[in-house]
Amino acid sequence: MPDPSHPKHARTDHDILDVIRRRWSPRAFDPDADISADELHQLFEAARWAPSSMNEQPWRFVVVHARRSPAAFAALIGTLTPRNQEWARLAPVLLLVAVRSTIEKSGHPNPHAWYDAGQAVGFLTLQATDAGLAVRQMQGFDPGLARDVCQVPEPFEPTVVIAVGRVGDPERLAHEAHRTAELQPRQRRPIGEFVFDEVWGRSLRTG
Amino acid sequence: MPDPSHPKHARTDHDILDVIRRRWSPRAFDPDADISADELHQLFEAARWAPSSMNEQPWRFVVVHARRSPAAFAALIGTLTPRNQEWARLAPVLLLVAVRSTIEKSGHPNPHAWYDAGQAVGFLTLQATDAGLAVRQMQGFDPGLARDVCQVPEPFEPTVVIAVGRVGDPERLAHEAHRTAELQPRQRRPIGEFVFDEVWGRSLRTG
Repeated sequence: MPDPSHPKHARTDHDILDVIRRRWSPRAFDPDADISADELHQLFEAARWAPSSMNEQPWRFVVVHARRSPAAFAALIGTLTPRNQEWARLAPVLLLVAVRSTIEKSGHPNPHAWYDAGQAVGFLTLQATDAGLAVRQMQGFDPGLARDVCQVPEPFEPTVVIAVGRVGDPERLAHEAHRTAELQPRQRRPIGEFVFDEVWGRSLRTG
Repeated sequence: MPDPSHPKHARTDHDILDVIRRRWSPRAFDPDADISADELHQLFEAARWAPSSMNEQPWRFVVVHARRSPAAFAALIGTLTPRNQEWARLAPVLLLVAVRSTIEKSGHPNPHAWYDAGQAVGFLTLQATDAGLAVRQMQGFDPGLARDVCQVPEPFEPTVVIAVGRVGDPERLAHEAHRTAELQPRQRRPIGEFVFDEVWGRSLRTG
């Protein structure tokens, strides 16, 4: 439900889609709130329709379910940085995202593979938000270990690990900084710092 | 307006957000349908709230408006491949996306900069769809030329050029293949080809 007073909902200067406004990246997941197979399929259907360079669709996902695959889940948790392990172990589902680093037909490098995967995960994340789920993405993991754990073949590259679930109780988090972050407003640069008009550094005209 | 019979709207196996279902990448833009400053600000507000590794927000946008900045617009068109030039010259606005390739505080490389920019552009694209606008992204451009044209400093990297506008008449496109593509259903891999369960190659369980 939209809640204008929610501390993690974006305070925007211009109206935006409600799923974008409400999306945030929690660390506190509810380990008892499972994700259904239907919900997972919706997430991947959303990712599926993202655009990509030459329609390569370089993204791949390995789903590791805490309850159904406890050994694989523990192994994937083991690829994370210690700080990420502490909170991510309570998520009901982890996803390993891998991208094909080469163009399928030619075998040439695909410099936009990671960029395209970002869009697919962005779509997945907004679909999750719409379903009352939340997503936190991690670059803090060992890609070589994750390759072994999930048996990712060349020329695919492990890119991020994603926790998916429902928001849980911040008090279950081990670190005070993590508990506090669950309630602090999100911060972003103002538009004037990242959007320029015609050439770098010139402010976007408002009329 | 949602139109279930629109040839470019996704034919999905699972329900997804309407803005994801309706998003597609046209080549035929209406050169007479301008984009307002308010609309542009909404697009960047949506991009602004995308997640990024360590909240680096590595994305930057240079807005080049066909009517307001005709010389700069022609110069940016000149960085595109000949095939992209043919259709993109009718778009009312082009955006050059550049990413900061290094972490701001440490100066170390940021391997997730392009991935994060993909998410920001994904959010921008869905915001555009919601506003009745359309977006086509291009990797077919000369990044070195685009750097010069838009005065992109190091350590930023030109990543994609984006056309934004309202969908126009396919008959104005020069190439038959481009005209046809405006009406052909979009194609994607089935979920079974890019989502795996626990390990690479194993099908996602449905129950």
